[in-house]
Amino acid sequence: MAVYTTLGAETLAELVAAYDVGELVSAKGIAEGVSNSNWLIETRRSNGRSHGATSRFILTMYERRIDVNELPFFLDLLDHLAAHGCAVPATIHDREGASLRNIDGKAVALIQFLPGVSPSRPTPAQAEAVGAALAKVHLAGRDFPGKRADRLDPALPEALALAAEVAARWPTDLPRSIIHSDLFPDNVLMLGQEVTGLIDFYFACDGLMAYDLAVTHAAWCFDKPGGLFDAALGEALVAGYESVRLLDHAERAALPLLAQGACLRFVASRAEDWLDTPPGAQVQRKDPMDFVRRWRFYREQGDAIFAKR
Amino acid sequence: MAVYTTLGAETLAELVAAYDVGELVSAKGIAEGVSNSNWLIETRRSNGRSHGATSRFILTMYERRIDVNELPFFLDLLDHLAAHGCAVPATIHDREGASLRNIDGKAVALIQFLPGVSPSRPTPAQAEAVGAALAKVHLAGRDFPGKRADRLDPALPEALALAAEVAARWPTDLPRSIIHSDLFPDNVLMLGQEVTGLIDFYFACDGLMAYDLAVTHAAWCFDKPGGLFDAALGEALVAGYESVRLLDHAERAALPLLAQGACLRFVASRAEDWLDTPPGAQVQRKDPMDFVRRWRFYREQGDAIFAKR
Repeated sequence: MAVYTTLGAETLAELVAAYDVGELVSAKGIAEGVSNSNWLIETRRSNGRSHGATSRFILTMYERRIDVNELPFFLDLLDHLAAHGCAVPATIHDREGASLRNIDGKAVALIQFLPGVSPSRPTPAQAEAVGAALAKVHLAGRDFPGKRADRLDPALPEALALAAEVAARWPTDLPRSIIHSDLFPDNVLMLGQEVTGLIDFYFACDGLMAYDLAVTHAAWCFDKPGGLFDAALGEALVAGYESVRLLDHAERAALPLLAQGACLRFVASRAEDWLDTPPGAQVQRKDPMDFVRRWRFYREQGDAIFAKR
Repeated sequence: MAVYTTLGAETLAELVAAYDVGELVSAKGIAEGVSNSNWLIETRRSNGRSHGATSRFILTMYERRIDVNELPFFLDLLDHLAAHGCAVPATIHDREGASLRNIDGKAVALIQFLPGVSPSRPTPAQAEAVGAALAKVHLAGRDFPGKRADRLDPALPEALALAAEVAARWPTDLPRSIIHSDLFPDNVLMLGQEVTGLIDFYFACDGLMAYDLAVTHAAWCFDKPGGLFDAALGEALVAGYESVRLLDHAERAALPLLAQGACLRFVASRAEDWLDTPPGAQVQRKDPMDFVRRWRFYREQGDAIFAKR
């Protein structure tokens, strides 16, 4: 959740005028996204006499961590996935066809607004829907022409170094696609049991599809207040995924290890955020210890959890 | 700008169901307001077959500084002013007629969403419109039955103690009404030169109308990057105010002193915020020194600035 930059009304109005979306009528800095600043923008097309219809968009300003040279990959990916029927927001292109513009030297993109709210206590039915939505992204991602090397998070190698046995056994030959690799509940919009939007693709890259499922598992299936594993959520998530794309035997066998790697990555990246966040930033820092506990859980019980029933 | 609390989707949906506003379809924590958490809420009325029209609201959760016993005063005031044609958001009443509800022991209110963006570099025409909107509030406030003593900000007495000569000369017999007393550009929504909303009435109280104009003057008429006074803005603000309500001679003569008091109050309250803000809060702290400079300016040049031309 972050708004790192203050954007004046005049600057925003000028930016919006570069797109064929009507006139700016409202802009609210929103507490969403960790590496970027985001605004919920409302525009109105005037239709002569009376007030026209309003539309809403998300304006994202890329602040930290993201290599500007990689933004075309992310934005083209959103367009590709949206065109293939995935529940992701498409980008809005400006009057010259570009999906990326600059304000004061910072890259910004205008992105489709999707309805839905992020579930804070997901139900199994919601987890199942998310599994299915993730698998659809994986299937559609396979013919995306853009390339982004399997870097995942800069924190992953460091995290793996923390646990030599995970690193030594890390699989490399599982099926690959473009993966989201950060699909926390915060990054999923839902209406009831329907996934209305997967958002925040800024860790997307070429990678192991099963790793992406393991990340999602680690992010979704633990009760927030107590940190307890919720087996029903875990089963529903995997079942939803397999309703769209079946895991092969090697992928399923690797899930306990992949989930440990996912946890270690979040331990490292959160520790880094914890130290790095500027005091004035409107961002909620997250406790790295959550994922130390989840890592231990997968190390001890991962084999049982992911065993095929 | 703040979101102090995380509200789950389920909690939000349940809250929204208490009002006759349709179903929750989106909720974004927004970076607005200093003492409260705020969400921009979107709802939809289903109309049988197809998707119905959406509406937007601001959900405010009262977190700090505000005495819950005073909330009815603030919310009734919004309804009173809105009913009198002032550009303020009305409150939404729940199915039982209440404008105030509770979530986890905290008071919340659902408030009308108004279009408009806060000007970051106001023009004289905008300042004039704001002056007129403020004067309308003062006129409508005079027959508001609610009472809230002239406390302004807890920081004012402390601030005045900083400058004994301001305190000694502080006027008490100028015309009174309900005053906003915190009308920074952040608290004004505009579309072009039209004021679409005066918001954040949580310092409103019975007070000197001329003090309210002085607060607005101190808040609006200084160039942000350089801190330089913009005489054209100041004149337009006062002219706009007087287009609705003429200042009497004593009020005009008191403006230099009232503006100094306003500045000192912001020095004290910002210093307090600076020390008080919890590190995790998504809030931008403001530099108290801005208003030390403005105070000096009014002390030295206030008489010339506010002299009737």
